[in-house]
Amino acid sequence: MATVPSVSYSITVRLEVPAGGKAVSQLTHAVENAGGVVTALDVTTAGHETLRIDVTCAAKDTDHAQLIVDRLGAVEGVHIHKVSDRTFLMHLGGKIEMQSKVPLRNRDELSMAYTPGVARVSMAIARNPEDVRRLTVKRNSVAVVTDGSAVLGLGNIGPAAALPVMEGKAALFKRFAGIDAWPICLDTQDVDEIVRTVQIIAPGFGGINLEDISAPRCFEVERRLRELLDIPVFHDDQHGTAICVLAALTNALRVVNKKLEDVRITMAGAGAAGTAVLRLLLAAGARNVIVCDYRGAIHLGRDDLDDTLRWIAENTNAEGYSGDLRHAVRGADVFIGVSAPGILTGDDIATMADDAVVFALANPDPEVSPDEAREHAAVVATGRSDYPNQINNVLAFPGVFRGLLDAQSRTVTEDMLLAAARALAAVVTDEELGPNYIIPSVFHPDVASAVASAVREAAGGRARGMTEA
Amino acid sequence: MATVPSVSYSITVRLEVPAGGKAVSQLTHAVENAGGVVTALDVTTAGHETLRIDVTCAAKDTDHAQLIVDRLGAVEGVHIHKVSDRTFLMHLGGKIEMQSKVPLRNRDELSMAYTPGVARVSMAIARNPEDVRRLTVKRNSVAVVTDGSAVLGLGNIGPAAALPVMEGKAALFKRFAGIDAWPICLDTQDVDEIVRTVQIIAPGFGGINLEDISAPRCFEVERRLRELLDIPVFHDDQHGTAICVLAALTNALRVVNKKLEDVRITMAGAGAAGTAVLRLLLAAGARNVIVCDYRGAIHLGRDDLDDTLRWIAENTNAEGYSGDLRHAVRGADVFIGVSAPGILTGDDIATMADDAVVFALANPDPEVSPDEAREHAAVVATGRSDYPNQINNVLAFPGVFRGLLDAQSRTVTEDMLLAAARALAAVVTDEELGPNYIIPSVFHPDVASAVASAVREAAGGRARGMTEA
Repeated sequence: MATVPSVSYSITVRLEVPAGGKAVSQLTHAVENAGGVVTALDVTTAGHETLRIDVTCAAKDTDHAQLIVDRLGAVEGVHIHKVSDRTFLMHLGGKIEMQSKVPLRNRDELSMAYTPGVARVSMAIARNPEDVRRLTVKRNSVAVVTDGSAVLGLGNIGPAAALPVMEGKAALFKRFAGIDAWPICLDTQDVDEIVRTVQIIAPGFGGINLEDISAPRCFEVERRLRELLDIPVFHDDQHGTAICVLAALTNALRVVNKKLEDVRITMAGAGAAGTAVLRLLLAAGARNVIVCDYRGAIHLGRDDLDDTLRWIAENTNAEGYSGDLRHAVRGADVFIGVSAPGILTGDDIATMADDAVVFALANPDPEVSPDEAREHAAVVATGRSDYPNQINNVLAFPGVFRGLLDAQSRTVTEDMLLAAARALAAVVTDEELGPNYIIPSVFHPDVASAVASAVREAAGGRARGMTEA
Repeated sequence: MATVPSVSYSITVRLEVPAGGKAVSQLTHAVENAGGVVTALDVTTAGHETLRIDVTCAAKDTDHAQLIVDRLGAVEGVHIHKVSDRTFLMHLGGKIEMQSKVPLRNRDELSMAYTPGVARVSMAIARNPEDVRRLTVKRNSVAVVTDGSAVLGLGNIGPAAALPVMEGKAALFKRFAGIDAWPICLDTQDVDEIVRTVQIIAPGFGGINLEDISAPRCFEVERRLRELLDIPVFHDDQHGTAICVLAALTNALRVVNKKLEDVRITMAGAGAAGTAVLRLLLAAGARNVIVCDYRGAIHLGRDDLDDTLRWIAENTNAEGYSGDLRHAVRGADVFIGVSAPGILTGDDIATMADDAVVFALANPDPEVSPDEAREHAAVVATGRSDYPNQINNVLAFPGVFRGLLDAQSRTVTEDMLLAAARALAAVVTDEELGPNYIIPSVFHPDVASAVASAVREAAGGRARGMTEA
């Protein structure tokens, strides 16, 4: 739950107050005394005896919203009519739609977009299958695929409850990269069925964005789909996070004037994100990494190593450190957490090397309080939007897929991920770079195009406009 | 192939001609002499010595287009640069796109449409699964599903080549009923896999429109999906056609003043469309039907009856007629063909009863020449747009799904199909009704809403606006 009132939890309370009394002036106080923030107060109907007022205010969470409503109702003379929630209002009927790009005003247009004209286009594709990437939406479309097993921090809530998240993701694809994504929420969590289903629906899409599929199943799903499909498959929770972390770390090390090859990195978390972050860090040149999970440091002596953990043990922690996370951060130059809230304190950060870099990315509550971390570390980043240096996958996936689609790439390679991370880091100029600005805002206008160019080039694709033939 | 030049086969020839000579005036003649129609002639660059001109003209087919280009090239002084095809130009990059309905201009909007705000919407659906029909695109979305096995009249061209048709269908859904459809082209033609795949991707959709799946597999796919899913499943090639045929026949019988219960109907075609048309005619009260396939009349004595043909034999042809189609139309009041081109002649139609009704719906070439049929029948309908009385599924499926979605229907029943047909027929008023107007134009503004209301009512759903909560 948020610790401060957030517009993402904004309610509008419709109420009636006596026209003459002090009630109106007491409304704002009531909200503020309850810890809320009034963002709008609209008188919608003014009568002789009563006023109808819509009070919109930001709350912290559900309980807090109820408290605010209760306090408003307790103001003398106030009668509460209806409480509505801006986020829910925004979601009514869904957040995305399909639009036709061609006019269908008359029979001539119909006869070109549909029968009989479309038959020639279909036959052209039947004769030359590659034309499907030129003459259809496949050129620009991505399936956002989930099984609902690990949705945000909410866990295994299933495919229907995951749909609003996937719609949001589709909206972001369009907003930041002009990509036509459509959510595909799978009513199965069986790896074989997920793989086969995505393979079967693949012909209509130019790329597959896997989303919120829990580890370790996500690794196998992605690996097998990459072998089977001739379009790129990208698990955003893994690689989107990895790209952003590497980009942010690249710039953080510029700030503290250290080299990736030299620094000692302690990581917390060996799930989908943690594993992908580790792989990309190693590919970028990191040489001294220890990864901890909830049982402590991962090393070859542990008796609970599955394939993923064994790979981690084999490629990190050369000295076979077997202690816990707290001791693993002592003297480390970099801490990267993609794990759980509140597992470290400011005192732990104080034990790190000078000019420490702390990425505490657990959402919504970081591994260590950012405020405490900032007392002891030179650079601090989180996943939160209410602190500087927000590490947000929106910085990566739109540009990555834009580049992949424009290159008509059939794969995603580590080189492309590295190129994306370098391009994202390079958006921050030397003049702009600083402890509180190691990563650009998601609204920075150059981010998606810079990432797209780098990925397209790494994919060997020529530059293409989105509408070019 | 079309017999007259069609805008659905429109080419633009970019060429250069000497500025001074007679070449320009000869261009139009060259096209006309080749049997084409010039629809535009644009001088794009005028120099001292040469003019660059774009000549756009309608052709009949590929060979004809080539002939026109050759004739243009043969005009003295003309130099052909490039030939482009308007239908292909319209398809470049695809015909549909995804659009966000919510603004994502700043962090506040992002935090409501995506994390952290979206988490509360997902949790609401996890707690109350029915909310997915209120808070997501499922409320208004249809999957247009094909396996590419029977695309238009083109046959088994596969899922990728089917995509332009499915995109066109999605565009029609939006144009005529405001529905958000997305094409799902399946890379399998195995019934079990089709059924399982559609079941797995169903959570994100409010309805399934099966399209261009060949018989008899389409029957089993539809039957099994209807059993498995809690959203309506509608195979347009079957039921869309059936609704339009019943509506048109209702009005044709109004014209000739006969009753469905009394007329003798001969049908040609026992595939997906023919079977569905038959079922709906029987449900509407038809009592005297003979169905023929390429082996002649279907009767219980045939030794090649599969499940579908046996059902037909058991429910039609009570007298056990075993002859061929030509003899079966003798004395019939109604002929309905959903089969193959040119299987009857005008002379055959002359043997029908007085005031005969002929629906020759094979596409693009009807079972009998409409011109010949019109000499002997009172009412003639085809699937073609260049004759009166075009029977076009666009008259049915948009309104049907609009009604189903608005009613949040979980099924499609025969009652709903009958209601749709009656509503479609009733769009033609008594004043308008005549032998050349038994069915409204696809652009008639009342069609989709009339069909939608009827289906919604039959589904027991209350009237809902598309954006109402």
